[in-house]
Amino acid sequence: MNVQGLSEREIFSYLENAKSEDTDYYRVLSSMCTHPHKIAAEAHRLFIEANLGDLGLFAGACKLEQEVVRMLGELLHAPLIDVPSADSYEYSVCGYLTTGGTESNIQAVRGMKNLITTGKKGLKGTPNIVIPESAHFSFDKVADMMGIQVRRASLDSEFKVDLASVESHIDANTIGLVGIAGNTEFGQVDPIDKLSEIALENELFLHVDAAFGGFVIPFLEKPQPFDFKVPGVTSIAIDPHKMGLSTIPSGVLLFRSPSVLESLKVSTPYLTTKSQFTLTGTRTGASAAATCAVMKYLGHEGYRKNVQYCMQLTTKLVAEARKVGFEPLLEPVMNVVALKVPNPDLVREQLLERFGWHVSITRTPRALRLVLMPHNTPEEIIIFLQDLKKVTAAF
Amino acid sequence: MNVQGLSEREIFSYLENAKSEDTDYYRVLSSMCTHPHKIAAEAHRLFIEANLGDLGLFAGACKLEQEVVRMLGELLHAPLIDVPSADSYEYSVCGYLTTGGTESNIQAVRGMKNLITTGKKGLKGTPNIVIPESAHFSFDKVADMMGIQVRRASLDSEFKVDLASVESHIDANTIGLVGIAGNTEFGQVDPIDKLSEIALENELFLHVDAAFGGFVIPFLEKPQPFDFKVPGVTSIAIDPHKMGLSTIPSGVLLFRSPSVLESLKVSTPYLTTKSQFTLTGTRTGASAAATCAVMKYLGHEGYRKNVQYCMQLTTKLVAEARKVGFEPLLEPVMNVVALKVPNPDLVREQLLERFGWHVSITRTPRALRLVLMPHNTPEEIIIFLQDLKKVTAAF
Repeated sequence: MNVQGLSEREIFSYLENAKSEDTDYYRVLSSMCTHPHKIAAEAHRLFIEANLGDLGLFAGACKLEQEVVRMLGELLHAPLIDVPSADSYEYSVCGYLTTGGTESNIQAVRGMKNLITTGKKGLKGTPNIVIPESAHFSFDKVADMMGIQVRRASLDSEFKVDLASVESHIDANTIGLVGIAGNTEFGQVDPIDKLSEIALENELFLHVDAAFGGFVIPFLEKPQPFDFKVPGVTSIAIDPHKMGLSTIPSGVLLFRSPSVLESLKVSTPYLTTKSQFTLTGTRTGASAAATCAVMKYLGHEGYRKNVQYCMQLTTKLVAEARKVGFEPLLEPVMNVVALKVPNPDLVREQLLERFGWHVSITRTPRALRLVLMPHNTPEEIIIFLQDLKKVTAAF
Repeated sequence: MNVQGLSEREIFSYLENAKSEDTDYYRVLSSMCTHPHKIAAEAHRLFIEANLGDLGLFAGACKLEQEVVRMLGELLHAPLIDVPSADSYEYSVCGYLTTGGTESNIQAVRGMKNLITTGKKGLKGTPNIVIPESAHFSFDKVADMMGIQVRRASLDSEFKVDLASVESHIDANTIGLVGIAGNTEFGQVDPIDKLSEIALENELFLHVDAAFGGFVIPFLEKPQPFDFKVPGVTSIAIDPHKMGLSTIPSGVLLFRSPSVLESLKVSTPYLTTKSQFTLTGTRTGASAAATCAVMKYLGHEGYRKNVQYCMQLTTKLVAEARKVGFEPLLEPVMNVVALKVPNPDLVREQLLERFGWHVSITRTPRALRLVLMPHNTPEEIIIFLQDLKKVTAAF
């Protein structure tokens, strides 16, 4: 840092220079994020000062956050409860805006742990949770931080979690299960209804990681059950900053029961509120405004069109890939394609070096992983497959 | 969420309505946040899309983040190391932009735990850390999450951590100490140099929580030792979104040694990078741009003026308060005043209800807690004390 500051002009020249090195999502097929909607960016700007960590000072931003929770409760089929006094109804859901899927997953597991260890069910030994092998790497952070054991159930041939494997991992110290609704690698949805049966039978929490799928599955032609309509689902992570087209950082964690949220509370002696259940302290209200704005602007129909567009790209990609001899590992469930190609790591490298395509790789088996997002176009798909053919022709 | 979306006009009318309920920091004496600098807000807007969770796609934003780390390393006296090949030097510091002090504190403790438990020093039983009684409530979250024991050392008569109490809490399972440079309640600075001696003697980590004080102490007339100049300090939390005048969320966690940061890594199979040491996954690059921009714009002199202004308000408040018979609990070290008043909880309530003043309360002893920020004015101070007198006259 200089002793004297730089001028505004020097600084923005410096920033623009840095920005030129950032992607504008051209030829990006590896990201689950995309351009935020312009309404979201504008709302974010309007609330740039808001601090949801101090709700008494930011009652307006706080209402926007609660409206997001309410709208998502509705979207994700939270049960209705009568409010006789108000002659209306509310959704039986509670939650808050997180920084994204990782915080949501950490807090969901922390809630399980807190409620079980302070609750009536006694544990003998280290508590554990059972997650699918396909769970996001944020659960590695959970395992690293939380003093609980994270057990990984294997996948079936369709890359869904294998239910027999889940059951085999459950013991007296198991406190919860995790199912993924749109896993990062394959876009596959675990059999949440079946996991729910296992969870209810064994009195376990069931957290659904729908960070990516939450803004996709409800808008598919044939949505699979994954949300609060499934009785055993106790919490859901959903990320507006992915397919919700909001700004970063915008995640949401929803609980069916307030008791789990309550268990996360710590006292906050010097704030306008008495306690805090969030992971972070100071947190942006701009994301709440952005998410609220884009959800109200697009409505169900806007999101349905967004998902339809991405699914059309997906269908096109798979069809064109087949024409040149590449098969997907599974029929895409959402806008994620895992494509079988020879030597995927080398293909990835060359696609980037020779043609500027950003793609990624699934772990097991190794295949090209392609996420079809609103920033992609049908014309790009054709060019991508031509480039893929060129790259693989050499092998 | 409606089936059809609302119009842009309807949405911004709705947002403006919510915004009217948010504070504009008028008569706010309770917050450690303030208006972000306009340069920060503008830089934030420019990088609204940037995702530091995917560094390969956002190399420009990543450079801004590293520049922030470098500038803070310089500010906080990280040791210089020669880079013979480049004929220059670098600061021996590493770190990253967090969402704020809470994440920084959590990650610092997680680093201690990971490095000790995977390192050579064997532990018998649950690891523990020793923190001051005055530590921020984020350490309650650490205690709740991390599977380690958090021991609280008592304070001396000046509200600094008592060194004998710290030493009495250290045992074979202690992995680290925490000192606060600018504690939330009193703005007091713990004797970091003495804590450093204890840490070095016992081979412990020493994390300094300078979330608030980090952008204050270096610009005071007589700065106390609190940063990497003190040899035992292994990590520092500093929040640009407090006195750094950046946007939310902007925290920074700095480590003296890369080995601690390394210990936080988990693999990231589907990203452009191979591993991630951050707590969150997707994270905003807009904060990096905002922080980098405001630091370069203000420079040392800009921050010095900002601190001088806040300290003048502080001195004025204490002098005027004394004139009407209210004494501070301690001579303010930075821009935080703890004022002895009769029945502080009631005073707080009435200051808000009758005059719209937001103040807060220290825990032990209970006193009025006032934070003098750049949004406050000397004229306000006079009116505040008149109002305080009116409120207390009734008792």
